Amino acid sequence: MKKVVNAPERVVEEMLRGMELAHSELIRLIPEHNVVVRADAPVQNKVALVSGGGSGHEPTHGGYVGPGMLDAACAGPVFTSPNPEQMLEATKAVDGGAGVFYVVKNYTGDVLNFEMTGELAEVEEIQTDYVVINDDVAVEDSTYTSGRRGIAGTVFVHKICGAAADDGKDLAGIKELAERVNSNVRSMGMALTSCVPPVSGEPIFEIGDDEMEIGMGIHGEPGTERKKIEPADSMVDELLQRALGDDVDFTQGDVAVMVNGLGGTPLMELYVAYAHVADVLKREGVNVYRMAYVGEYMTSLEMAGFSVTLLKLDEEMKGYLEEPCDVAAGRPF
Amino acid sequence: MKKVVNAPERVVEEMLRGMELAHSELIRLIPEHNVVVRADAPVQNKVALVSGGGSGHEPTHGGYVGPGMLDAACAGPVFTSPNPEQMLEATKAVDGGAGVFYVVKNYTGDVLNFEMTGELAEVEEIQTDYVVINDDVAVEDSTYTSGRRGIAGTVFVHKICGAAADDGKDLAGIKELAERVNSNVRSMGMALTSCVPPVSGEPIFEIGDDEMEIGMGIHGEPGTERKKIEPADSMVDELLQRALGDDVDFTQGDVAVMVNGLGGTPLMELYVAYAHVADVLKREGVNVYRMAYVGEYMTSLEMAGFSVTLLKLDEEMKGYLEEPCDVAAGRPF
Repeated sequence: MKKVVNAPERVVEEMLRGMELAHSELIRLIPEHNVVVRADAPVQNKVALVSGGGSGHEPTHGGYVGPGMLDAACAGPVFTSPNPEQMLEATKAVDGGAGVFYVVKNYTGDVLNFEMTGELAEVEEIQTDYVVINDDVAVEDSTYTSGRRGIAGTVFVHKICGAAADDGKDLAGIKELAERVNSNVRSMGMALTSCVPPVSGEPIFEIGDDEMEIGMGIHGEPGTERKKIEPADSMVDELLQRALGDDVDFTQGDVAVMVNGLGGTPLMELYVAYAHVADVLKREGVNVYRMAYVGEYMTSLEMAGFSVTLLKLDEEMKGYLEEPCDVAAGRPF
Repeated sequence: MKKVVNAPERVVEEMLRGMELAHSELIRLIPEHNVVVRADAPVQNKVALVSGGGSGHEPTHGGYVGPGMLDAACAGPVFTSPNPEQMLEATKAVDGGAGVFYVVKNYTGDVLNFEMTGELAEVEEIQTDYVVINDDVAVEDSTYTSGRRGIAGTVFVHKICGAAADDGKDLAGIKELAERVNSNVRSMGMALTSCVPPVSGEPIFEIGDDEMEIGMGIHGEPGTERKKIEPADSMVDELLQRALGDDVDFTQGDVAVMVNGLGGTPLMELYVAYAHVADVLKREGVNVYRMAYVGEYMTSLEMAGFSVTLLKLDEEMKGYLEEPCDVAAGRPF
């Protein structure tokens, strides 16, 4: 196993410590609970946004904590849900009296634990609500998930609902907006290689040197098809065919587009993919809103591969998408 | 070869086309020359900054084109210098009458070609000057370079001199500032795996499953030592020992710190490395300025590994480091 780690079982704690040390103006850590919170939390009279999930998807989730996006992120072990105790600590740390909203990727452990945390928060007299994001059109039901999985489209929920919370939208309004984003976002991904989680030190799946898997999940969950590797344009064709062929009509209005790298695919290749994404969308009558999002937003350690996300925007979403934010994942300079 | 590419020989052109399509508000492409320029170039009466080099180091160089950083970037073939014709086209496209300044990483082909371009520009009555960045303390003289190599520290030159040019500094002033940054920046890197350039389809060097190489260059140039893989903290110790042990005294004043991923190392592991970087610097009496830079700034395709860069700051550099900029590499949101 070739990794920049010390003891594999301490990798999450050490990562979070490094994150806090690197970005101390933005975030602080509740180290005993592996929770990253905004440095200025709690923000009074603002709905607080909390997300979280297994580690190994960086910059998801901690990289999106800061003004204009999340108030807190709960980091579970690699590819494993955080527990309700962590989530409750995050909830208490960020509640500013206007309630706490959970952005949950559809992954059974995450959903159950955030639901339980909502009940625990009620005892603490903190009002909560949540959305379950299920943007991945690849498969219904999967290894760790009932229904469709939640993947990179979740980052658009962080951005849009984060700006809305800053704008003073109340808990019910945030929930309605989050559900609306979720109803209009569709993603589809593919993988070329497996990643190697630090603790096991073993690939999470086997794949041939000449194979790719369409519809692979970000924890190595099986996709829809294992086949011989194809040119980039064919990969894009397959992903977009599925994303465009789902139940959202992307030919009306403007669409935010993300090409998300899974960790091991160079930015060069993500731009190669985006060139064809842009061509196909133009041919299909889909209008890309302003600039596309091309980079690593939700990874799977060092897995090679990428996903494409389409979000059909309305005027309110556009406004919130354009608002400034200040998070570690958004400020290399 | 598992890559998201179509024809390997078209990968640079397709990447640049994708980059332009994704970020058309920021940049435009001179496609026949593989040059990325600011969308609003030329900016009148401002010194224009041009950089460039081989492709495969993304987001270097095109990702740093935009207000507050570079005016243009010339993309050579993967790991191969761009030619003077490209550089001259870039020069003519961005010259706003105040001269053009070349930020050149020390790589023999880049240096020769930018020097030749300066002579060609003189014929066109465009005043130019340049700096050669040689921040890599690993080795004197290397496969493609006479003297020390230029690596991730170059990005600080883009940022600081880009802000200075926006601020109205003249060509002589930009050169003095660039030389000052170069005199105060030191980097050292290591690699765990080789990358695979698309055209050859073969790793650029062989390395054992249990080995790492200290001081490896971003084109696979040999480093100082091949050894058994060590814990992250030991890797950091070796890199910092070299960077701190060079001729810059980092214990006086404030220091900008970058942990740069080479492409295949997850962000999780870069933060693990940064945690120990912060500890060592504190122990050694080095004061980290504001927030650290942790991410992929100058990569080597999908190579696993990282480098550490230290820049001793003065008050002028700090001011320019803090100025806003708007470049593709700096705006995921």
